[in-house]
Amino acid sequence: MSGRGKGFSGYTRTDEALKMFLEEAKARVLEAETVEAARALHRVLAEDVVSDVNVPHFDRSAVDGYAVRSEDVFGASGTNPVVLFLRGTVEIGGVPTFSIGKTETARIATGAPLPYGADSVVMQEYAEEIAEGRIEILRAVTPGDNVSRVGEDVKKGELVLPRGVVLQPQEIGILTALGGTTVRVVRRPRVAVLSTGNELLDSGSTLETGRVIDVNRPIITAAVEAEGGTPIDLGIAKDKAEEIEGKVQSGLAQADLLIVTGGTSVGSRDLVPNVINSLGRPGIIVHGVSMRPGRPTALGVVFGKPVLLLPGFPVAALLAFNVFAKPLINLMSGHKPRKEETVRARVLRGIPSGAGMRSFVRVALKKTDSGYVAEPLRITGSGIISSMVKANGMIIIPEGKEGIEEGEETEVILLRPVEE
Amino acid sequence: MSGRGKGFSGYTRTDEALKMFLEEAKARVLEAETVEAARALHRVLAEDVVSDVNVPHFDRSAVDGYAVRSEDVFGASGTNPVVLFLRGTVEIGGVPTFSIGKTETARIATGAPLPYGADSVVMQEYAEEIAEGRIEILRAVTPGDNVSRVGEDVKKGELVLPRGVVLQPQEIGILTALGGTTVRVVRRPRVAVLSTGNELLDSGSTLETGRVIDVNRPIITAAVEAEGGTPIDLGIAKDKAEEIEGKVQSGLAQADLLIVTGGTSVGSRDLVPNVINSLGRPGIIVHGVSMRPGRPTALGVVFGKPVLLLPGFPVAALLAFNVFAKPLINLMSGHKPRKEETVRARVLRGIPSGAGMRSFVRVALKKTDSGYVAEPLRITGSGIISSMVKANGMIIIPEGKEGIEEGEETEVILLRPVEE
Repeated sequence: MSGRGKGFSGYTRTDEALKMFLEEAKARVLEAETVEAARALHRVLAEDVVSDVNVPHFDRSAVDGYAVRSEDVFGASGTNPVVLFLRGTVEIGGVPTFSIGKTETARIATGAPLPYGADSVVMQEYAEEIAEGRIEILRAVTPGDNVSRVGEDVKKGELVLPRGVVLQPQEIGILTALGGTTVRVVRRPRVAVLSTGNELLDSGSTLETGRVIDVNRPIITAAVEAEGGTPIDLGIAKDKAEEIEGKVQSGLAQADLLIVTGGTSVGSRDLVPNVINSLGRPGIIVHGVSMRPGRPTALGVVFGKPVLLLPGFPVAALLAFNVFAKPLINLMSGHKPRKEETVRARVLRGIPSGAGMRSFVRVALKKTDSGYVAEPLRITGSGIISSMVKANGMIIIPEGKEGIEEGEETEVILLRPVEE
Repeated sequence: MSGRGKGFSGYTRTDEALKMFLEEAKARVLEAETVEAARALHRVLAEDVVSDVNVPHFDRSAVDGYAVRSEDVFGASGTNPVVLFLRGTVEIGGVPTFSIGKTETARIATGAPLPYGADSVVMQEYAEEIAEGRIEILRAVTPGDNVSRVGEDVKKGELVLPRGVVLQPQEIGILTALGGTTVRVVRRPRVAVLSTGNELLDSGSTLETGRVIDVNRPIITAAVEAEGGTPIDLGIAKDKAEEIEGKVQSGLAQADLLIVTGGTSVGSRDLVPNVINSLGRPGIIVHGVSMRPGRPTALGVVFGKPVLLLPGFPVAALLAFNVFAKPLINLMSGHKPRKEETVRARVLRGIPSGAGMRSFVRVALKKTDSGYVAEPLRITGSGIISSMVKANGMIIIPEGKEGIEEGEETEVILLRPVEE
């Protein structure tokens, strides 16, 4: 275990801990996989998309009108119309079965292929059928007028979408337009989630004295999903080294990241770190970080895979997930971390923060006539669920700042929309 | 077809059109369905969640220490310690097999159940084992000290989460803590998507002259998914009334919203509206809205179900989807519409906008030393894909404003992150 970055508080600074974690795990974008384009929403493009077709792939009319040879209508105008002979009609979706010879024309729909011989289209408002099969043209055109040429939008061989792009509906449209049905995207990170503790019951179990439902696994699993990872549920391990080791081994074999929560009872505190250390080097690299809540968080690397040990207290576990797992999952999946929505708010009560600690303070935000106000919520002790429900905002007090004074204005991260 | 809200341009104002659409369709939050709590991320709670358990459901120690009868340690201090007899240990996850009598104590872990007879816990730093089975207590406690009482966090019968809450990881944790394995959430809106046009080929088809790949269906399907709806793919209908009618009927039977794109070829322009009108009242209620691109958009209601007819041009189709389908899907699913991220930018070139029209202008945003600048992109004509790829921002010019002048600063919606 390294002592690097330990402040006078004895805890590794949060930023330094994350840096060590990402470096030691050699965190990088995962390899590519092929998925159906129609199932690729919000995935990250793993390779440049180069078009192997021209778009459009045939010369097509850009308007409803008449396909002509521009030399035939040279000088045409309202006062000097030119009369052409109608060869037929080219409907959208159809293929012209004739070509346009001298002084000939064809009715043509927007998007329909230009018949052989024609080089331009006269818009229908500048043409009139004066007799059966005879069209008067009232305006001159030059070659290419009102025609979308082959490759005008995208040329064969052109780079259309660079790797790293997050696929939104329009990019899925583009991939389809280029003829693709599948796309190479960055594989989703697989994240194994294990809870430890003799007291834990699986969700839905009948409550018994001394036992509690394991809430960390559902929370962390949902958080993994929210970040675009694929959760792997390893269940609950009792506070026994062999049982923990078996599940940890299974997690490391399947996943890109292993997250273990719990191990908070007296005898079990070092059980999980000891198992991690016994499996290989470097093992645990950080034990204890300068965040509050979340101080007991530990970070490790085994078999080249990152391992995150979260505190058992659910609020702390989710915070430490956000600080350490979220950037790692985003990095592996090629996503840029989303910017959190924030508001400025006046703090209704002073908030102390230990020197050298980064404090995460849940608050109840309210909108008043004079702007937002934030009331700090008590988050330690037993008010776990009630504080989670009441909080709609969070203030982060950095390591260098000793609390926030009453009435001070500060930035608050929105956890959910504020009722008006 | 109503003439309400038609401006001098002959088009129904965008806001008025949306209002008529939502009213005529009697748009409202959909009914509830039961899903597994573990699969309920980002869903909207359909019913109030009232706890039918107490949390905690047994008196538990809030610290590691010694369970005592407070009357036994009355007046205890460092200079006046009280000696108690150790009855045993209560581990977390265990159940005490003994009770605490006068002058007795038990070692207890955080989270472990308080043994019968004890009413408080002395933290371990204020206790010392001075001899086998003899514990010296160095501090007095009052009843309830360091104990989390039954129901302290949540009381049985208490409203914990109100309907309408969007379930995030912490709410999934709360539901689990209350003993739930399933949850009542608002059903996802089912949205049927149909493309029409003789020229359209299904994605992955071999290109042929005169035919193009249908890109609107993949785009709109992905957009439905992005809004949390369930897309139903109705495929492609040729420009034939019977074929369109069959697919429309099938869509209306299955879905909460039917979206049809295309019908832009000369002969087919009114084919889809005519089919909708033939099926029942009121049929098409708006045909042509004051948005650009997107003017040919039509809105209707048949069998009480909303029908949205999008233009065939993909950029316009997606814009009209965002203006009309997104608010409807959000309303039906109980979601509040997400606020789009915007920046202020200086416009590099003047942008004209027709009087009475709401213009949606795609721009290329760049960050400069003097802030963001926005270059308007040409979006009409054939540059469909190239403009989609180049645009990372969008400016909306409201109906009342006649364009934006060169150098003017305006709000730009971010379509994707701006490269630094």
